Amino acid sequence: MTAPHPLVLFMPSGKRGRFPVGTPVLEAARQLGVYVESVCGGRATCGRCQVSVQEGQFAKHGITSSNAHLSPVGPKEERYERVRGLPEGRRLSCSALIMGDLVVDVPQDAVINAQVVRKEADARIIERDPAVHMCYVEVEEPDMERPLGDLDRLKAALAKDWRYGDLEVDFHLIPKVQAILRKGEWKVTAAVHRDHDEDRPRLIALYPGLKNEAYGIACDIGSTTIAMHLSSLLSGRVVASTGASNPQIRFGEDLMSRVSYVMMNPDGREAMTSAVRGALSDLIDRVCEQGDVRREDILDTVFVGNPIMHHLFLGIDPTELGGAPFALAVSGAVSVKSSEIGLSLNEGTRTYVLPCIAGHVGADAAAATLSEGPHRQDEMMLLVDIGTNAEIVLGNAGRVVAASSPTGPAFEGAEISAGQRAASGAIERVRIDPVTLEPRFRVIGIEPWSDEPGFAEAAAETGVTGICGSGIIEVIAEMYLAGIISEDGVVDGALAARSSRILATGRTFAYLLHDGEPRITVTQNDVRAIQLAKAALYAGVKLLMDKQGIDHVDRIGLAGAFGTFIDPKYAMVLGLIPDCDLENVKSVGNAAGTGARMCLLNRGYRREIEETVRKIEKIETALEPKFQEHFVHAMALPNKVDAYPHLARVVTLPERKTLAEGAEAGGRRRRRGRE
Amino acid sequence: MTAPHPLVLFMPSGKRGRFPVGTPVLEAARQLGVYVESVCGGRATCGRCQVSVQEGQFAKHGITSSNAHLSPVGPKEERYERVRGLPEGRRLSCSALIMGDLVVDVPQDAVINAQVVRKEADARIIERDPAVHMCYVEVEEPDMERPLGDLDRLKAALAKDWRYGDLEVDFHLIPKVQAILRKGEWKVTAAVHRDHDEDRPRLIALYPGLKNEAYGIACDIGSTTIAMHLSSLLSGRVVASTGASNPQIRFGEDLMSRVSYVMMNPDGREAMTSAVRGALSDLIDRVCEQGDVRREDILDTVFVGNPIMHHLFLGIDPTELGGAPFALAVSGAVSVKSSEIGLSLNEGTRTYVLPCIAGHVGADAAAATLSEGPHRQDEMMLLVDIGTNAEIVLGNAGRVVAASSPTGPAFEGAEISAGQRAASGAIERVRIDPVTLEPRFRVIGIEPWSDEPGFAEAAAETGVTGICGSGIIEVIAEMYLAGIISEDGVVDGALAARSSRILATGRTFAYLLHDGEPRITVTQNDVRAIQLAKAALYAGVKLLMDKQGIDHVDRIGLAGAFGTFIDPKYAMVLGLIPDCDLENVKSVGNAAGTGARMCLLNRGYRREIEETVRKIEKIETALEPKFQEHFVHAMALPNKVDAYPHLARVVTLPERKTLAEGAEAGGRRRRRGRE
Repeated sequence: MTAPHPLVLFMPSGKRGRFPVGTPVLEAARQLGVYVESVCGGRATCGRCQVSVQEGQFAKHGITSSNAHLSPVGPKEERYERVRGLPEGRRLSCSALIMGDLVVDVPQDAVINAQVVRKEADARIIERDPAVHMCYVEVEEPDMERPLGDLDRLKAALAKDWRYGDLEVDFHLIPKVQAILRKGEWKVTAAVHRDHDEDRPRLIALYPGLKNEAYGIACDIGSTTIAMHLSSLLSGRVVASTGASNPQIRFGEDLMSRVSYVMMNPDGREAMTSAVRGALSDLIDRVCEQGDVRREDILDTVFVGNPIMHHLFLGIDPTELGGAPFALAVSGAVSVKSSEIGLSLNEGTRTYVLPCIAGHVGADAAAATLSEGPHRQDEMMLLVDIGTNAEIVLGNAGRVVAASSPTGPAFEGAEISAGQRAASGAIERVRIDPVTLEPRFRVIGIEPWSDEPGFAEAAAETGVTGICGSGIIEVIAEMYLAGIISEDGVVDGALAARSSRILATGRTFAYLLHDGEPRITVTQNDVRAIQLAKAALYAGVKLLMDKQGIDHVDRIGLAGAFGTFIDPKYAMVLGLIPDCDLENVKSVGNAAGTGARMCLLNRGYRREIEETVRKIEKIETALEPKFQEHFVHAMALPNKVDAYPHLARVVTLPERKTLAEGAEAGGRRRRRGRE
Repeated sequence: MTAPHPLVLFMPSGKRGRFPVGTPVLEAARQLGVYVESVCGGRATCGRCQVSVQEGQFAKHGITSSNAHLSPVGPKEERYERVRGLPEGRRLSCSALIMGDLVVDVPQDAVINAQVVRKEADARIIERDPAVHMCYVEVEEPDMERPLGDLDRLKAALAKDWRYGDLEVDFHLIPKVQAILRKGEWKVTAAVHRDHDEDRPRLIALYPGLKNEAYGIACDIGSTTIAMHLSSLLSGRVVASTGASNPQIRFGEDLMSRVSYVMMNPDGREAMTSAVRGALSDLIDRVCEQGDVRREDILDTVFVGNPIMHHLFLGIDPTELGGAPFALAVSGAVSVKSSEIGLSLNEGTRTYVLPCIAGHVGADAAAATLSEGPHRQDEMMLLVDIGTNAEIVLGNAGRVVAASSPTGPAFEGAEISAGQRAASGAIERVRIDPVTLEPRFRVIGIEPWSDEPGFAEAAAETGVTGICGSGIIEVIAEMYLAGIISEDGVVDGALAARSSRILATGRTFAYLLHDGEPRITVTQNDVRAIQLAKAALYAGVKLLMDKQGIDHVDRIGLAGAFGTFIDPKYAMVLGLIPDCDLENVKSVGNAAGTGARMCLLNRGYRREIEETVRKIEKIETALEPKFQEHFVHAMALPNKVDAYPHLARVVTLPERKTLAEGAEAGGRRRRRGRE
């Protein structure tokens, strides 16, 4: 009986297999489908295929692993280490041969660059399998006896060394191939793009000599903010991140006003497409400068955005999205040469745009879903991205449903008397003493709270100018907890007797949050605006819960800028989100940007989200008869009918008290148009 | 026992199969892989799927076929016939159901438009399977419950009705799809491009409603002439044909001078690329006007050309072709969006360029090979395209070899004292009385021969201005047959005593062909120039015969303009081509253009020529030690060593007589540089 071949286990993937003694570790990884980067194709020159071997007994796997089970460092590897250096314990997997059982670590060298505060790249490590591979080859020189063309000999070399048979070639390379081959003295690095496994691979760029780096861009085009990450396609490292306001804001703050602009202006679509593409170009300049990367070295790009941004970015008239049946021009993923959408990068650079889920649930929601992975887990997860139109996804591995809800711009500070964007001077945190009804608050740009030493001095400089989204959530929730407003949202005028903070304003009352210049109050109308917005959101969530047949969710992810800054507890006090263990309610930051980055670094995620989006059931809230009922119940704080047992454990919810609100008694009910 | 299903035989393909009663004839054709066009997808509206049924007993096939074995004409087909009309005996195969045994004729409605004399389309009927299909579909309207995008619903319809799953979409259509669907009221015709079977099909154009026609262009870019054919992709009919001089002539008459121009002038490549693309654009205008076709309705194009034209057309610097090892930038077939090479047609139009065989044997030779098909036959066929550089292909189904030979421009009238292009006034046919040595000749543009009534009057108008390529071949062959020149090509000065036609010119002699203004003579140098050219050509042919191990060929095809006008008999007297039964020596016209048209109308031919070119063995004459020896033998008329038994049966070849040619006695031997 011969001894079996050595057993090799790759971490972190856990893939394993037996290989003959003498097999290069890189080859074993390839055979198992473990992604290990390599540009030079086993010539020990690019250094991309580093691995390390764990020492010791791994009883669980039945492996005793040791560096001694690798072949000794040979002359090529030795030369690489001498010239370029290798971290302690690292080996080049192209040169290290399997001599015995091994546990091999594939290092995930993702070094995060945390330059940008608001929309920085998620720190997670993304397993790599990019759509673009860099492949170094040495090409046979031309020969009169066998008159194959230069390009054809390059293709033969790529088929032989990299198994890229039947290669397609971007036409722009054809007039250049001879000069590049000669400049590289018949040694070149080919950038080969293959997204779908069943696609023919495609040569998209060609460099003389060894080209040991390539980059990609992942970008979330939000209605208000654009976030962009520049990553190495080879190491996965985020090289630079940046963000900017969406310049389309000048055509309209919210999405519907931008659609109206297109409908009203003959050149509106082009103007908005140019604006967003121009902004992207500026951001590309910025990340390139930050990362010291040339535009030509960016070979792949991934974009997400809500349906209207998605359409405008692609040059599609979004008018159809402005009215029922809200028909998307295209819902599936879009693949295109970047130059076709006016991005000036390498001529061969590709763009992938994630699929949209529905007419109001965009590629950004798809990307957030990919990032947070409700479809990958058993627990029932609610994912909410609150903008002027909330995108809601609810599900688990068994079933995922999605909807949008017309929350309107109240959460962003519009429709609020003292509302403003989250910027210096905005009140972002509020506490109200339930006995004295006196507030304390915190202002963006000022470190101390308003009742702490140093606040007055700082405020004198910055000013206290308004209330931002998270501040409005907190002040109304605190007003409710302090008994200033009833569960129906009526400001209790009777309290005016007890506190000068309660002001009569015509037939209703307001709460004086800050008696400065300007004077900042929370009016009855402000409370109503927030109630309407949160009721719309909650009604949408509730419809999805109905579809799933559940009465509580296990986890909640709050996506987007708004989700990043609101305190989940206050969101729950307001009844913006359903009851849930607060431990399991998390801000997920720019989950859409993270999902885009996942698709950039691993084309497997593209298939995953395409498949997931195909399966997601879309609920059109406007067509659901129960929406109105849920909406009415959700006008109450936190909710007229739904219990908040988890919340009640951490917050003392006030007893129910019903107040009539002057002329508005009985509650105003309206169903707002879509936005 | 149940009776077997009816047997259906399709003609002309001969494909047959049994199908259940009630199967539409179109469906049976599809299943057998018989190409029957259909745009409307079985709705009996496009009328493209017409067939007819042969009546009678076909004992060989065991079929008794009758129109009664088709289902009666139903209401849809009746309506089509009433509105559009159907030729006698025709049925719509989408509507006619198989009820019994049938012999079905698929009509090949190729109607040839013979407007242009020189480079007209070959009249052959080409079985169709174009790379572009027109597919009418009715698309589901958008629906809030299932929020698929408009494009995605279009794709679903194409997958369902036309089995085009996994469709790729040209990006330029994405911003247009909504408007087109709405204009067509959800009924549209998609142009789907699929070249390779393994490629994903691709939507390249979209039209509202039923679009029942689409066109393609096949074009041979010759060094001197460009020939273009406009064909219907649906019926195969040639709608218009035209030709023009290649405007690159202003950069140099022959290919090498054009390469030199590129090498000497920094913008030379761009200038020549622009010139040829501009000429193509003019020709497109012309065929569109002739055929009453809009540019936007041209959806596919096929181009061929010699390697230098091929490179310049594609925007590739041809400098490498100017010297050993004569490296092509690309030898394989090239597929590209037409817009990428500056052809302004439909935005989705594709271009296919046939593969080149070697650095001097181009895509034109490949196309001629495809057209004449040596690789499809058992007989050994020689295919010669004579230009300034002759492209030679020799082979049969077993093996094909190819080479080029530097013939120089003598055959085109350059290097000949009275040489001129084949145009009005050029002598194109010559006979010499062997007794009197008096010539008679025929001039382009003049109907009678020079010794017939009316010639003088006509000549007074037209003029007799020179000798064109076919004329020079004939006059030298006739001079040889009349004994005016020896087998070594020396003009026999002794004959001056017998005839005033023999003129002393310094140390050598000339033959006076026409004593007019200008005086047209054939000088000793003219004879030498033709000898050198024909010896180079023959030596190349002979090398290929050596490779094949043969001493005679079964068939000879003479391609190109020169091949069209020379008399094979005289070509053989000169020893330009090897001995062969004259019955089997044919002009094959613009075989390259025909090959291009085959690739346009049937993508199967693309695979055939790609495969054939991969297999063709290329002989580099410059590397072959025997070339020189063959060349020297071929300087003699017809040849010093090779016998011409077939020729001797129809022509009385003179007895051998060797003459010394004044100062040049012993024969001048030179090997010319490539061109």
